Amino acid sequence: MSVHFRKLALIGIGLIGSSIALAARRQGLADVIAISTRSQTTLDEARELGLGDIYTLDAAEAVRGADLVILCAPVGAYEAIARAIAPALQPGAILSDVGSVKAHVVKVVGPHVPADVSFIPGHPIAGTEHSGPSAGFAELFAGRWCILTPQPDVAQGQTDKLVAFWEGMGSNVEIMEAGHHDMVLAITSHIPHLIAYNIVGTADDLETVTKSEVIKFSAGGFRDFTRIAASDPVMWRDVFLTNREAVLEMLGRFLSDLSTLQHAVDIGDGPALEAIFTRTRAIRRSIISAGQETAAPDFGRPHEAAPVPDVPYVREHGGGDDA
Amino acid sequence: MSVHFRKLALIGIGLIGSSIALAARRQGLADVIAISTRSQTTLDEARELGLGDIYTLDAAEAVRGADLVILCAPVGAYEAIARAIAPALQPGAILSDVGSVKAHVVKVVGPHVPADVSFIPGHPIAGTEHSGPSAGFAELFAGRWCILTPQPDVAQGQTDKLVAFWEGMGSNVEIMEAGHHDMVLAITSHIPHLIAYNIVGTADDLETVTKSEVIKFSAGGFRDFTRIAASDPVMWRDVFLTNREAVLEMLGRFLSDLSTLQHAVDIGDGPALEAIFTRTRAIRRSIISAGQETAAPDFGRPHEAAPVPDVPYVREHGGGDDA
Repeated sequence: MSVHFRKLALIGIGLIGSSIALAARRQGLADVIAISTRSQTTLDEARELGLGDIYTLDAAEAVRGADLVILCAPVGAYEAIARAIAPALQPGAILSDVGSVKAHVVKVVGPHVPADVSFIPGHPIAGTEHSGPSAGFAELFAGRWCILTPQPDVAQGQTDKLVAFWEGMGSNVEIMEAGHHDMVLAITSHIPHLIAYNIVGTADDLETVTKSEVIKFSAGGFRDFTRIAASDPVMWRDVFLTNREAVLEMLGRFLSDLSTLQHAVDIGDGPALEAIFTRTRAIRRSIISAGQETAAPDFGRPHEAAPVPDVPYVREHGGGDDA
Repeated sequence: MSVHFRKLALIGIGLIGSSIALAARRQGLADVIAISTRSQTTLDEARELGLGDIYTLDAAEAVRGADLVILCAPVGAYEAIARAIAPALQPGAILSDVGSVKAHVVKVVGPHVPADVSFIPGHPIAGTEHSGPSAGFAELFAGRWCILTPQPDVAQGQTDKLVAFWEGMGSNVEIMEAGHHDMVLAITSHIPHLIAYNIVGTADDLETVTKSEVIKFSAGGFRDFTRIAASDPVMWRDVFLTNREAVLEMLGRFLSDLSTLQHAVDIGDGPALEAIFTRTRAIRRSIISAGQETAAPDFGRPHEAAPVPDVPYVREHGGGDDA
């Protein structure tokens, strides 16, 4: 099924919203793209980047006449947006979103959705640590998964159209129940972010190791964590405020396992450590095979060329035994 | 100071040993490179790759006549190696290593080092998740730091030579006390590896979320952790067996901070969460400015091109309301 929308309304235009705008435009998935956001500065930025056709601070105006509306704002803003746009939603329209939690979205947006609008919350599992309208790019969703959680009263044909829209942008699509989504994402995304934010904070607070040392020697592993710990703070605040139960459950599992590992270090249990460290390689191989990660070492990070031999280097000789 | 060694002996030829061999050869830092390792298979692999000039299973034979000897084996093997090579070390030689812990290395290797040999333990803060002789490349150390911990009786001129050797391979060099090294690396490398191994193990054990779901949706953040959790298990077992005190101290800090974060999630303290998530961005910016990380989003991971619009995609229509 080839899909085409007359008017796509994006409410919020950060990394994900701008990537949808660029991908939908490039793939010809919508005639008109209307962009709405709360901040005049961000709206001006989106206009300068040429991300859409209509720019407005009024979300209701953006959704008027749209057959596809996607909320791309932080989840904490959803309820107010839903209240504002509900009267302007066109009968037969699809209302979706890209938020990192789903049960909460169903709970706060659901009650505002008119009966003749198809509410299909969604979540593309894609992103970078950059944010804002200039961070988007059309290839962001290519090869990544997008989870859709169609509500029970939604017609299959409407879900099919939204599936085709995401496939058109290069995504794979999985249909899932909202509560299960929240459990899956708690372990694959929310806990990783929580512990990354945490270790970066811990390192920042030490007295025995200076900040300069943490920075210089970060290539030992620490720098990997700083990437996701550089993600948008407001977005992540909202994730942890709205997926509390699943996050606390998965965090409990993580802490229980960490306590086992701590004990193995404490008593010097070499075989236990080696066994734990050996089984974890397989999962990375599977992620690479599934096309969700590069096989290149070090994420394919660029390596500087080594200095050429004919560039002379001069060091003061400190004297002493030089034999 | 330009440096040049007559014979460089590498004991152990994994990722780091093979990278030293390639970089030293390319930069003309040694006339002859002798390679020794315990396993015939690995030795044959090194020979096929043409990493050196002399290949032997006998470490003592490799170090005979060498003016620079670098231990590149897992730290757990050091004491036996030191015992084996001590009688063959040439007067005036420099003995160094690349192990991830330093106080333990001083403790187990130090007593075996003859008085006329300069013992300067070292640690290049560089690597990838790949291991073995074929994983090495000459650019590995370019722009990365190498920490040297010269022992008190070592002449400055000998330290200068080793500094010049690492600078010749493109490294920056920092001189540090062994115990302090172990504290710095506990937070910048050992704890990151421990929690990465841990979360990958946790995810692997869940019943509510399938392994296939963890793999598919790993781009939400989890896949970042699988990189360092794919590092060499034996090497990392030895790190945690030999840097117990510093690791447990830093883990205690991490857990204490995590408990604060857990509480903030539990009581829904939005301002506290946002404050913690905001301060962590600065440290990544500093790491990028210091040349220790790429500024490209997502570590510069390759992104597939989005599908071109003229490739038709076909989906079964599920029927129902399609307005």
